[in-house]
Amino acid sequence: MSETYIHIFEKPKKLKNPILIEGLPGIGNVGRAAAGYLVNKMKAKKIAEMYSPHFLPLIVVNEKSMAHLLKSEFFLIKGKTNDFIVLIGDFQSTTSDGYYEISGKILDFAIQLGVKQIVTLGGMATGKIEKEPKIYGVVNDEKLIKKLKKYGINFKPHVPETIVGISGILVGLAKIKGIPAFSLMAETPGFPFMLADPIAADSMLRILIDMFGFDVDLTDLEKEVKELEEKIKKAEEIHKQMLQKISEERKDLEYIG
Amino acid sequence: MSETYIHIFEKPKKLKNPILIEGLPGIGNVGRAAAGYLVNKMKAKKIAEMYSPHFLPLIVVNEKSMAHLLKSEFFLIKGKTNDFIVLIGDFQSTTSDGYYEISGKILDFAIQLGVKQIVTLGGMATGKIEKEPKIYGVVNDEKLIKKLKKYGINFKPHVPETIVGISGILVGLAKIKGIPAFSLMAETPGFPFMLADPIAADSMLRILIDMFGFDVDLTDLEKEVKELEEKIKKAEEIHKQMLQKISEERKDLEYIG
Amino acid sequence: MSETYIHIFEKPKKLKNPILIEGLPGIGNVGRAAAGYLVNKMKAKKIAEMYSPHFLPLIVVNEKSMAHLLKSEFFLIKGKTNDFIVLIGDFQSTTSDGYYEISGKILDFAIQLGVKQIVTLGGMATGKIEKEPKIYGVVNDEKLIKKLKKYGINFKPHVPETIVGISGILVGLAKIKGIPAFSLMAETPGFPFMLADPIAADSMLRILIDMFGFDVDLTDLEKEVKELEEKIKKAEEIHKQMLQKISEERKDLEYIG
Amino acid sequence: MSETYIHIFEKPKKLKNPILIEGLPGIGNVGRAAAGYLVNKMKAKKIAEMYSPHFLPLIVVNEKSMAHLLKSEFFLIKGKTNDFIVLIGDFQSTTSDGYYEISGKILDFAIQLGVKQIVTLGGMATGKIEKEPKIYGVVNDEKLIKKLKKYGINFKPHVPETIVGISGILVGLAKIKGIPAFSLMAETPGFPFMLADPIAADSMLRILIDMFGFDVDLTDLEKEVKELEEKIKKAEEIHKQMLQKISEERKDLEYIG
Repeated sequence: MSETYIHIFEKPKKLKNPILIEGLPGIGNVGRAAAGYLVNKMKAKKIAEMYSPHFLPLIVVNEKSMAHLLKSEFFLIKGKTNDFIVLIGDFQSTTSDGYYEISGKILDFAIQLGVKQIVTLGGMATGKIEKEPKIYGVVNDEKLIKKLKKYGINFKPHVPETIVGISGILVGLAKIKGIPAFSLMAETPGFPFMLADPIAADSMLRILIDMFGFDVDLTDLEKEVKELEEKIKKAEEIHKQMLQKISEERKDLEYIG
Repeated sequence: MSETYIHIFEKPKKLKNPILIEGLPGIGNVGRAAAGYLVNKMKAKKIAEMYSPHFLPLIVVNEKSMAHLLKSEFFLIKGKTNDFIVLIGDFQSTTSDGYYEISGKILDFAIQLGVKQIVTLGGMATGKIEKEPKIYGVVNDEKLIKKLKKYGINFKPHVPETIVGISGILVGLAKIKGIPAFSLMAETPGFPFMLADPIAADSMLRILIDMFGFDVDLTDLEKEVKELEEKIKKAEEIHKQMLQKISEERKDLEYIG
Repeated sequence: MSETYIHIFEKPKKLKNPILIEGLPGIGNVGRAAAGYLVNKMKAKKIAEMYSPHFLPLIVVNEKSMAHLLKSEFFLIKGKTNDFIVLIGDFQSTTSDGYYEISGKILDFAIQLGVKQIVTLGGMATGKIEKEPKIYGVVNDEKLIKKLKKYGINFKPHVPETIVGISGILVGLAKIKGIPAFSLMAETPGFPFMLADPIAADSMLRILIDMFGFDVDLTDLEKEVKELEEKIKKAEEIHKQMLQKISEERKDLEYIG
Repeated sequence: MSETYIHIFEKPKKLKNPILIEGLPGIGNVGRAAAGYLVNKMKAKKIAEMYSPHFLPLIVVNEKSMAHLLKSEFFLIKGKTNDFIVLIGDFQSTTSDGYYEISGKILDFAIQLGVKQIVTLGGMATGKIEKEPKIYGVVNDEKLIKKLKKYGINFKPHVPETIVGISGILVGLAKIKGIPAFSLMAETPGFPFMLADPIAADSMLRILIDMFGFDVDLTDLEKEVKELEEKIKKAEEIHKQMLQKISEERKDLEYIG
């Protein structure tokens, strides 16, 4: 596998004005937590998985001794006026150019599915705890702003100043292909020990429910985010151990890295 | 997006002996400032944008909450005996081999447009402030020297000793393809705090105006270069912050970089 | 050579339900020692070699002044109900994405040969010496577990938590292609000075003999593993020296790595 | 330019059993000095140049203000029973996988020219000054040894233990393609300040003259090697400066390198 690869289980037919919602790992794992909760609570159907040589070179073993490559997953949620493709995953990229390759593959798949709009979700580190974290919007088409303001999304010049990673690049690449896209960035403390922020995820989900009419109850969110945080904590420890192991084994090799 | 990509808005027809002028970021941002001033003052028309996985993996958010990938831009300036394609941009390359890939793509596009000559602009660090910075020439065809000397361009053995980056490689690759090309290098202090040097840009522009007959008034140059410097300062701060953020998030990953 | 390349000497015909057994270098070199012993004792026939730009950029000189690129080798062992393709080699990968490319090439070759099952062998560092090291199993298909338990293979949730490198990725990628695969991980101290662990290799081989009916006597194992360890020790020293040499020569180049 | 590229000026016809002699930069620059002396003294004709994204991303400016990309050059020397293609150059590779890509391209070109044998030249660091440096041989075909011993080439088990870089990989890859190849390694002190070793180059040239019947006088060798050393010294200084410059400009970028 020399490049990022999307394995399609079943290509959905006749999608209604589909919208892609991306929630990959990032600051406070806000996007991942919000998108993951949607997928779980709405029992969304998995339609494809994405693998990449830009992910960590390892498999994770689960409680049933089953091996899994790191991956991202595309789920389908059917709606009334729109269908939704929700992208969640384990990892972004180990390399700088990998972000572009992966974002390009996601976009190609979205175009193949006839996606009409792209929404990317993320966190924005503020360094302090907010009781009601605000959501800021960034768009690739000025026309989107007016509509988004109605849902309480905030717009402020240069806020955030940049968006690093797939959440950002996807919105930028979509513009070249003529697909309207926007990024929703939730305020989150960005403290290193707070791996997943349930309050920011709550703010994010309220907006998504309001905007897209998802029939989702937020009662279990805090519990689920805590479970997610446990998983992430474990994953981070594993990564750390593995990387240390690789590091030790390869210490000498690094000279020619 | 696995490789550098040029998105063409409108392919210009019947260009008159077109000349490519490259002014990307570099020492003292002399080329960027001079080429950017030309583009602004002559209200040049944008004909294409270039994106690359070798750029930083982020989008920049502007004052209108619009997202932009880092990019380079090709502008068209119509002239009497020659038309000009002016290339300006945000970034060169994050990787060593990226410089070659990007330069190759620029050259392919130039050949596609029928470009007959290539001029690259840059700064040459001298470590001191010159009242009237000299411009040194480097060519890929000895015949060019005589003609260039008439415009006051200086030629001195091994000065500069090398040209790093796209300004250099473009001139070198053009030779293989049989396209005459030269690089103009302006003396500039090269102090880290002087992000854009208006005096060197002024010297550079005087020569370009003399050589190519651009109808440009230099009155606003100092002001515009100051504005450019503010932008660059902000961009550098953003880059630093973002990179630090990536660095913190990825500290462990670096073991296997 | 821009990508991993498998040089096939002779493509075997009419293989009987072939099984691929992978034993590349790793922790305690358990897989390498066990698979290498099988290949030697059963006088297996070499059918292909694999080379890769992700291996160290050097050749090794043997006692007859013959030069050898680093390589992996595929051997054929004919059996009664199954034939076996055994993969052993000198090296895994210098780069993170190389692990994926190399694993992909191995899998493509296995599919070309009609491989019906994949077994990867490795060590699992425990930090202590076990008299009778246990073998843990990790599968890509739950159905395999019941059958494997009969041979005394242990299954425990999240043990090991991850498998780094080709032993892991091969099992993960095989799942996408619908090929049942499992990894056998032997307990081994993982002490840096113990380069090859004969006790773990013994446990591993007993299971392989039991499972696949190999007609192999383990009498010479300890001696052969000691010889292997000498070879590895020498190889590691060479690598260290070479890498230090490269490092010194390239110290300045690292700035732009 | 995304991959190594050989620009052929004139493809030579009807070559007589051509032999490729490689002399790129390396320890003591022995191969480079010996091959370069042959090319100069025999007024060899240049038939091709090689460029690569794995070279440093810069151009070098000469005494006539002409720009040159770093490159390798192929020269033709006509002989009585054999013709010779001599490869000399400025640089090996900035990346580990680049060595393989570049070696592969050289080999493809050699095959295209009908090359029947490959000789690579290099230095072997001994840490002491030898009055009469010995030349050691490493082969990819045992049959070559007997013939080479006649010319006073030494063969000793595991000497050198490895050959790093293009001199080595070319011999290894040639074997896969069925082309006999050998490497000649001259003893050289390997002191960092001795950039080019005229005594080792002298030993190397005496063997090449004896073996291939080159009509070359060695009178000017010491002088030429001193000149070469001056050039290399300058090149190294330039590289150091440039790399430092890149390093300073990119210090922050390195976090995501």
